[in-house]
Amino acid sequence: MLIDLNCDMGEGFGAWKMGDDSAMLDIVSSANIACGFHAGDPDIMFNTAAMARQKNVAVGAHPSFLDLHGFGRRQIRGDSPAQIERQIIYQIGAFKALSEAAGLPLQHVKTHGALGNMANEDLELALAVARAIKAVDPDLIFVVMPGLETERAAQQLGLRMAREIYADRAYAANGNLLSRKLPGAVIHDSEIAAARVLRMIEEQAITTVDGIRIPVRIDTVCVHGDTPGATTMAQQLRARLENAGMRIAPMAAVIGAR
Amino acid sequence: MLIDLNCDMGEGFGAWKMGDDSAMLDIVSSANIACGFHAGDPDIMFNTAAMARQKNVAVGAHPSFLDLHGFGRRQIRGDSPAQIERQIIYQIGAFKALSEAAGLPLQHVKTHGALGNMANEDLELALAVARAIKAVDPDLIFVVMPGLETERAAQQLGLRMAREIYADRAYAANGNLLSRKLPGAVIHDSEIAAARVLRMIEEQAITTVDGIRIPVRIDTVCVHGDTPGATTMAQQLRARLENAGMRIAPMAAVIGAR
Amino acid sequence: MLIDLNCDMGEGFGAWKMGDDSAMLDIVSSANIACGFHAGDPDIMFNTAAMARQKNVAVGAHPSFLDLHGFGRRQIRGDSPAQIERQIIYQIGAFKALSEAAGLPLQHVKTHGALGNMANEDLELALAVARAIKAVDPDLIFVVMPGLETERAAQQLGLRMAREIYADRAYAANGNLLSRKLPGAVIHDSEIAAARVLRMIEEQAITTVDGIRIPVRIDTVCVHGDTPGATTMAQQLRARLENAGMRIAPMAAVIGAR
Amino acid sequence: MLIDLNCDMGEGFGAWKMGDDSAMLDIVSSANIACGFHAGDPDIMFNTAAMARQKNVAVGAHPSFLDLHGFGRRQIRGDSPAQIERQIIYQIGAFKALSEAAGLPLQHVKTHGALGNMANEDLELALAVARAIKAVDPDLIFVVMPGLETERAAQQLGLRMAREIYADRAYAANGNLLSRKLPGAVIHDSEIAAARVLRMIEEQAITTVDGIRIPVRIDTVCVHGDTPGATTMAQQLRARLENAGMRIAPMAAVIGAR
Repeated sequence: MLIDLNCDMGEGFGAWKMGDDSAMLDIVSSANIACGFHAGDPDIMFNTAAMARQKNVAVGAHPSFLDLHGFGRRQIRGDSPAQIERQIIYQIGAFKALSEAAGLPLQHVKTHGALGNMANEDLELALAVARAIKAVDPDLIFVVMPGLETERAAQQLGLRMAREIYADRAYAANGNLLSRKLPGAVIHDSEIAAARVLRMIEEQAITTVDGIRIPVRIDTVCVHGDTPGATTMAQQLRARLENAGMRIAPMAAVIGAR
Repeated sequence: MLIDLNCDMGEGFGAWKMGDDSAMLDIVSSANIACGFHAGDPDIMFNTAAMARQKNVAVGAHPSFLDLHGFGRRQIRGDSPAQIERQIIYQIGAFKALSEAAGLPLQHVKTHGALGNMANEDLELALAVARAIKAVDPDLIFVVMPGLETERAAQQLGLRMAREIYADRAYAANGNLLSRKLPGAVIHDSEIAAARVLRMIEEQAITTVDGIRIPVRIDTVCVHGDTPGATTMAQQLRARLENAGMRIAPMAAVIGAR
Repeated sequence: MLIDLNCDMGEGFGAWKMGDDSAMLDIVSSANIACGFHAGDPDIMFNTAAMARQKNVAVGAHPSFLDLHGFGRRQIRGDSPAQIERQIIYQIGAFKALSEAAGLPLQHVKTHGALGNMANEDLELALAVARAIKAVDPDLIFVVMPGLETERAAQQLGLRMAREIYADRAYAANGNLLSRKLPGAVIHDSEIAAARVLRMIEEQAITTVDGIRIPVRIDTVCVHGDTPGATTMAQQLRARLENAGMRIAPMAAVIGAR
Repeated sequence: MLIDLNCDMGEGFGAWKMGDDSAMLDIVSSANIACGFHAGDPDIMFNTAAMARQKNVAVGAHPSFLDLHGFGRRQIRGDSPAQIERQIIYQIGAFKALSEAAGLPLQHVKTHGALGNMANEDLELALAVARAIKAVDPDLIFVVMPGLETERAAQQLGLRMAREIYADRAYAANGNLLSRKLPGAVIHDSEIAAARVLRMIEEQAITTVDGIRIPVRIDTVCVHGDTPGATTMAQQLRARLENAGMRIAPMAAVIGAR
């Protein structure tokens, strides 16, 4: 059985660093590269893609609201879906060019932070993301949250999709991520996180904070690279999955093998 | 005889406007669209490309230093050529994706403001621009200043190029544009500008402020859209050229017909 | 009877212009100067204050969310009240220094766009604005919407306040401005606008879109400088008010005379 | 004998960190706080000032070119001295308001990065900085490089000044800092750095890379907080100076005791 591990990367900016991308690229199979709107700059984008290529990790664009100050974690309300669609085309196009310049084709698109959370609950927004992806390249994989509006939008537009769960985040009653501001939203114990992910994959279901079990298809697991102990947690998860007989592979291989 | 008229466009930002793009698109044959670094945003980029498509005007990316506050007119010194190359790849990729989403393929790349002026006098920088263009698409046309380092860089990398003169700008002794800060740098009389352009094209030569005549090949004439009377000056120039028997066509057609 | 006319100004950025500040400064008695977060830059801020001083117009800081791309009109959700308080202190401090350098002391603070609208309906946010004003100078006037949370916050912190109505905007049922996206939100006929303002001042009450009359105290009337016909509308309003026997004076004089 | 140790601080931005400000505040006597143009944001500025107050460290504004992407280390050429003066007034005003809100008055102003280096060699620019300082508060201390244009500008405008040397940087023939790009520009051995500083203070002279000894007055020593081993180097320097009988005190005390 194949499963993908994905991680947000290239989230420094200019002189500022974020996370240990080199270490994470030894663990994951797909990397989501920030596109300059919440983090990342042309240098970081190119260099992260070049490093991913060296380490045989597939890359995707990780577009966001334009919000360096808030790291893309703040909701920005007021733009139309068409405006947001163009902002995403801009970011995918920018990263696609840099990634190809580094010798690596674009595999997928995964939205970041508040934009991603909002798209999961707003079909109009999710469709704007899907249209943006389709406009740049209809073969790109849209990373979606199973059961939510992003999955619906990918289906409506006939996009390839990779269904994602989070290794270290609790799920709200609606199947979306529980807000980071709420207690228990982030799982810090890597043993618990690994066991939980393994169970979710084996059962092909997520469990919400209310204890509800929602059956979903799972193609990829998001691990974080910017939290304390991130590398350790990701390594343990990978080992646990491999010990259970799974093989870690980029999401294109995972969904291609279905 | 074919000649291209090109104009910088899409140079608003958010709520701010700059120039009358709609009027200029009725006059010119190639449009240089700002890519968000000195002006322009995803909405403006898409809409300007869509409007160009409607009016049968070819489009190119118009990358710049990252300098919204200075409108790309300030020299930013400190980045390596490789860093600037990636900044340009980013911008070309972003606009290419938006332009193609609007149904219009990318024709050319023309650098903006201080970046353009510096590249004309610095071969390392000009080569960085040329490598960026080649990385995104080796068939893109590089708009160069004849006799300067940009022309040399295009030749070294084997890029297609369009050699450009300016309708309303005086030339310094080295063949580059005279700084806007110097008296006589900008020609405001549209009659004088039109007559001057016609002579330069007919003679295939520019004349510097010192009266030196430099023979150059001329494929395209840059007209400005953001100065008072810009539309009138561009219309008069177009009429003058057409009266002299020239046909206005996108630069791809001009250099294809050579 | 004294009444103040206030107008947002200095809302260009770098090479971009917005509105005719010089003309508006001949009409109004208080100017709200953008502080660089949604518009304005140090040059524009200084020059607008210098021009206001010449024309005997009082000035205030016009802080906003950090959102040049959205001109401060987009809601940005995610910062704590304490964070927003500091963002406002930053902006007031920056403009205060520039205005004093131009020889003009700071009279007031008026929040811009989405921040202003949100503060009118959220007491925590309104208190953050009020604390920011008090931190910089407890004698500054807080421009509030009568009946809403900004008025309440000013009262709680003991700040001087100027109660404001809008010349060209309709009022929602809760007494806040009707969203610009709704039909009838903006009044374009200057005759209607002037008559409406006069009635509101004389009755000391606003009337909502539902026809409800809400009694409020009115110290200042906001006129816009960035809409088509803005100058004409403002001039007609001023003439109408003066013909009705009112005298136009900065808000400090208006509330001082109560 | 009194000597000040100063350090740049508050140089994170949003989610990004830079250096260990808390540790450095236990060592130095004056902190230069980034003002949002090359680093820093309102939250960081306020919190760094609050922490400095707790640890009895004096604070100053650390203005820069507007260049988050380049961390203020890139030369930006094109603005007039008057424009730069206003950019500096903006930044000093913003930090002054936040620092006072944190209960700490502003002690000094020290320019950052490329702006600082350029001001040291360009009297017009140095005078623009000096005028900006004087405009905000004529009692502020201007941190200058002895023997260079900043010192001259402070003298011309009658500003109080603190003459500064760098603990870990080599000096070029003109007495300015040797460019970071040149070999030997940065001293990494903390023993060597400490011995060198001690000698410079005792001799009241700097020694350039060419071995030339330039007599200067020295009031303050700049230590860095963002390099590997920064805290250790600063601690060793402080211990060495104290062992030699010096007392570490804010620059206001140092120049007041002269």
